[in-house]
Amino acid sequence: MQRPVAEIFSQGDEVVTGEIMDTNSAWLSRELTDLGFDITRHTAVGDRLEALVDLLREISGRADLCMCTGGLGPTCDDLTAEAVSLAFGLPLELDADALAQVESYFTRLGRTMPEVNKKQALFPRGSERLDNLWGTAPGFALQGGGCRFVFMPGVPSEMKAMFRRWIEPDLRCRFRLSPARLVVLNTVGLGESSLQERLNQVVLPSEVKLGFRAAGPENQVKLLFPATFPETELDDIVKRAADAIGDAVFAIGGSEEPDSDLASVVGRELAARRSTISIVETVSGGKLASRCAGQPWFHGAVVIPDSAGLHRYFGMAPWDDLVRASTRIVLDSREQGADYALAQIAHYDGDQLHDEAGTVEVHFILSALDGVWRQTRLIAGDIERKRSTATALSFDLLRRYLQKKPGLHAL
Amino acid sequence: MQRPVAEIFSQGDEVVTGEIMDTNSAWLSRELTDLGFDITRHTAVGDRLEALVDLLREISGRADLCMCTGGLGPTCDDLTAEAVSLAFGLPLELDADALAQVESYFTRLGRTMPEVNKKQALFPRGSERLDNLWGTAPGFALQGGGCRFVFMPGVPSEMKAMFRRWIEPDLRCRFRLSPARLVVLNTVGLGESSLQERLNQVVLPSEVKLGFRAAGPENQVKLLFPATFPETELDDIVKRAADAIGDAVFAIGGSEEPDSDLASVVGRELAARRSTISIVETVSGGKLASRCAGQPWFHGAVVIPDSAGLHRYFGMAPWDDLVRASTRIVLDSREQGADYALAQIAHYDGDQLHDEAGTVEVHFILSALDGVWRQTRLIAGDIERKRSTATALSFDLLRRYLQKKPGLHAL
Repeated sequence: MQRPVAEIFSQGDEVVTGEIMDTNSAWLSRELTDLGFDITRHTAVGDRLEALVDLLREISGRADLCMCTGGLGPTCDDLTAEAVSLAFGLPLELDADALAQVESYFTRLGRTMPEVNKKQALFPRGSERLDNLWGTAPGFALQGGGCRFVFMPGVPSEMKAMFRRWIEPDLRCRFRLSPARLVVLNTVGLGESSLQERLNQVVLPSEVKLGFRAAGPENQVKLLFPATFPETELDDIVKRAADAIGDAVFAIGGSEEPDSDLASVVGRELAARRSTISIVETVSGGKLASRCAGQPWFHGAVVIPDSAGLHRYFGMAPWDDLVRASTRIVLDSREQGADYALAQIAHYDGDQLHDEAGTVEVHFILSALDGVWRQTRLIAGDIERKRSTATALSFDLLRRYLQKKPGLHAL
Repeated sequence: MQRPVAEIFSQGDEVVTGEIMDTNSAWLSRELTDLGFDITRHTAVGDRLEALVDLLREISGRADLCMCTGGLGPTCDDLTAEAVSLAFGLPLELDADALAQVESYFTRLGRTMPEVNKKQALFPRGSERLDNLWGTAPGFALQGGGCRFVFMPGVPSEMKAMFRRWIEPDLRCRFRLSPARLVVLNTVGLGESSLQERLNQVVLPSEVKLGFRAAGPENQVKLLFPATFPETELDDIVKRAADAIGDAVFAIGGSEEPDSDLASVVGRELAARRSTISIVETVSGGKLASRCAGQPWFHGAVVIPDSAGLHRYFGMAPWDDLVRASTRIVLDSREQGADYALAQIAHYDGDQLHDEAGTVEVHFILSALDGVWRQTRLIAGDIERKRSTATALSFDLLRRYLQKKPGLHAL
């Protein structure tokens, strides 16, 4: 079966001049590929009416689907609706519901809608409105020539939310898709080359495609199976791949499963136990708290910049041994009434953190109901990598404890 | 003077399927914009010969310059040279020097060149070779129709090195360039539509282009002036625009200035004073600490999930008035020895934070050497937006204090 052809189109001077990285296109492409579309082209153009009109017409003759982002705002450089109107000869009409939505967005903020925002409720005749519950700019979809166009705001969070809520279900109904089956093994703590080496021992049939997605300490191994691949054979291959990688695998799932990152996996385990956790973070510099905040199991965090800070907040001296130092932090966290306390203890200063060639030895400490557990790792790389690694390894200690993995060290 | 028109073209299945982010396009666009080109379009296509041939012909009729990345490797899906040959009717010819370079690359690694790599020394007739001293794939440049095409490898480090060494100097000679001047007004707390409304009162000459870049609570107003625009008139326009927007403007600069975000601006003020700050954050959920961590002026943070947490950590009850509540937090922060303490105080629970339609009233409190200052704002949107807004408004209170803006409220 021929897959339907899709193109991706981004609008904005800030994209063509390189001021911002167009992350939307890559995200949408992955989603559409997983759904079973054949993506043939990405195009980005600036905020110029003729360029937009030309491009829309071009695409309408080439693709079955076009996903468009940007250009739906209230200002003079937001030209999408006007361009669509000109490209396909559809007059702009005021959508009363869209107007009410934009107005209510401002009302909730206790403000009156500025006159310029009225523009955001103008759509080409025949459009289907796509409500934006996450921002001001509603989207719309319509048929232009042989192609279905879907127009979304350029703000990634709004675009993604609208895609999940309205667009993805509609695409599944509207197109005859037979997606390949993607199985993702989520791993933590192993680099791409280590993963590749461990997987070399697994013999894959030629029609199964192996891929990797490196994202720092959390890396994904992707197995892409044809739609008609036998189920039992698939299960067997996935099991052999997971065994080859070992306990670095923390979750196995399809691509459509959202929240398959380590923080979400750990969060679900905590939520299921109705447990709470309090955090003391050093090297990860607020990143760990950011990943926990907003979750019912998050009890609070202290973010400490360096060893001097550990002394200020917990009276911890550099000559304290690990047990003594940890005890103070654990006791302090327990005072706040959390079920678990997760801490990073390390001796370092700011220069060491910033030095790309410098390493920091970090003790990850978990105080649980049945004891205090520890994992010690040397962390390297630039400051961002050190922060991400420390964040992932904190979650990983908790994950190994909650999933009852062997090899945990008691303090 | 009309600026020469440039397009960016990326080749690769991994780009169109979203497996990798095409960072080359944004990088090249910034470089070319700074050189004085007018970038009109980015296009990415997969590894298909007809698609490549079509695209090369399209671009040759539209642009003066096209920068192309990818497709120069040795494998069967590397089709660039073949596509150029077909698009412009130029037979492929073996370049003996290029072959020697590819061979010597393998010799240096102590290996024999595989036969497939011979392909990398085949160029369309009339090409100028671009030596790749940083990898195996040489690039080439040629005239196709009215357009100069420059073909570079897709590996970012090789592409950038070749651009700097060979391509940029050549472009400066080959094209008559006079770069436009971009002035950016960085603002906080005003939406795009409010900015547009305030700027409506400033009359701009038609050759000055006004643009916006929305990034949540921090929004940029961009004024693009032609290269020959008179300096005093430029200064006057920038001043009138800044006055129209008012004290929401926190920094004015050119596009090339890095770190012009609010956190960096505030950080520089703190560093210049050799002051330190300690933080209590609620709604921003670790985002504020993340922005401060790693900076010498960051003294530590407490991240509190909700009102119950304010009670646990600071004994703050919902019936406490703002002065009493703030006093406790400020005293506690002072105990840690920081010069400033910045806190968010709000009464809310997790549901309120997650509710996209729900708002939270946040008191931003700054304890400084000469008193305690306050700003109260209603924060709306989904949890991510609430967190970003609370982060920006915390920095903004500090910024207004440090920049001695009028209108601060003492507690």
